[in-house]
Amino acid sequence: MKALVLLSGGVDSSTCLALAKEKYKDIVALALYYGQKHSKELAAAEQIAAHYNVQLLKLDLTPVFAFSNCSLLKQSTEEIPQKSYAEQLECRHGEAVTTYVPFRNGVFLSVAASIALAQNCSVVYYGAHADDAAGSAYPDCSSDFNNKMNEGIYIGSGRKVQLVAPFVKMTKKDIVALGLQLGVPYELTWSCYCGGEKPCGKCGTCIDRKAAFAANGASDPLEYEE
Amino acid sequence: MKALVLLSGGVDSSTCLALAKEKYKDIVALALYYGQKHSKELAAAEQIAAHYNVQLLKLDLTPVFAFSNCSLLKQSTEEIPQKSYAEQLECRHGEAVTTYVPFRNGVFLSVAASIALAQNCSVVYYGAHADDAAGSAYPDCSSDFNNKMNEGIYIGSGRKVQLVAPFVKMTKKDIVALGLQLGVPYELTWSCYCGGEKPCGKCGTCIDRKAAFAANGASDPLEYEE
Repeated sequence: MKALVLLSGGVDSSTCLALAKEKYKDIVALALYYGQKHSKELAAAEQIAAHYNVQLLKLDLTPVFAFSNCSLLKQSTEEIPQKSYAEQLECRHGEAVTTYVPFRNGVFLSVAASIALAQNCSVVYYGAHADDAAGSAYPDCSSDFNNKMNEGIYIGSGRKVQLVAPFVKMTKKDIVALGLQLGVPYELTWSCYCGGEKPCGKCGTCIDRKAAFAANGASDPLEYEE
Repeated sequence: MKALVLLSGGVDSSTCLALAKEKYKDIVALALYYGQKHSKELAAAEQIAAHYNVQLLKLDLTPVFAFSNCSLLKQSTEEIPQKSYAEQLECRHGEAVTTYVPFRNGVFLSVAASIALAQNCSVVYYGAHADDAAGSAYPDCSSDFNNKMNEGIYIGSGRKVQLVAPFVKMTKKDIVALGLQLGVPYELTWSCYCGGEKPCGKCGTCIDRKAAFAANGASDPLEYEE
């Protein structure tokens, strides 16, 4: 069985690839550029793929998101919030956070399913997790979303491709715990949304990442700006 | 309420746009290039959009399908079958037809949902119909597929975008009947998969199109090669 793993170069997807290596013999990884400010994560994806000796396919989806002013995108007039997700959600009144790229994960999963079919993969493996879905911060990370997309992709692919989101009910703390056990080279990963020289330590994803290491009594191998 | 209409320039999507014009005040259309041999349909989409006075967004998704050898694509080594879909399915043993582009409609709908969100549209309107889904010729045209994708898109968009496929249980004959009633300028549309000067009249989609007009006792305004 061949699996296609979505690989952004961050903690979740790198751990996902490490887990896939335990489960599938044949793996291809897919890294997507979409105009994100932190395009630096793609260099991390390359290093992670090289570490695990898997082929990395790369694709540029920037034009799809050209109409969005999402703060995660280079074209945006909005700044990346320097707050935890919990703090950000307090003033969003049920709306997704400003770093939610319009239906990004739906686009990613559909594109991954298409390439999986063309590459004879029967599984798309990806690292969505419960923390990102909490409070509807990222509605396209939830277990419900994953289930429906899985059904849509299974039917629409002629029952040839299934989505597997092994972390969909896990927290980032659980993911890091698993990754430390699997020996994921976290020093090669990149999470920060701000795209600076060093991770800022202040954006939602930096805060989450540091907390996940701390909750495991481990130190994050990255050096932060702050 | 603003709607985004997927417009290929063929009979189904052009009728879909005509119907959308009856239902929604504010409409934007989206035409997608994906490496199809019949890229001529995009010129038809422009003419149809101009006829209905709607803005047409255009996007090139060719790189997504670069790994596929589907016969509909320019890069393919396969010829477009010169047979009806019923005949094609006889020797496919439950597989999709060779003109099924891997999960194309899933990718299209996800991309449309993303752009709909960015453009404040609450509906993605598109012309999938029952004939294309019959016998699993195109598994990504079925009512089941549509329902699951609708649920996935609704949840993943933060409950802001819904899919509407008004023809999903109708035949192409029914669509043409409706379109003739609505005065769709079918002389501006393009269906043939072969991308020649005139429609070939022999590929599955030409055969279906001609039959749909004939079943309505109408003549197709296009002049065929044969």
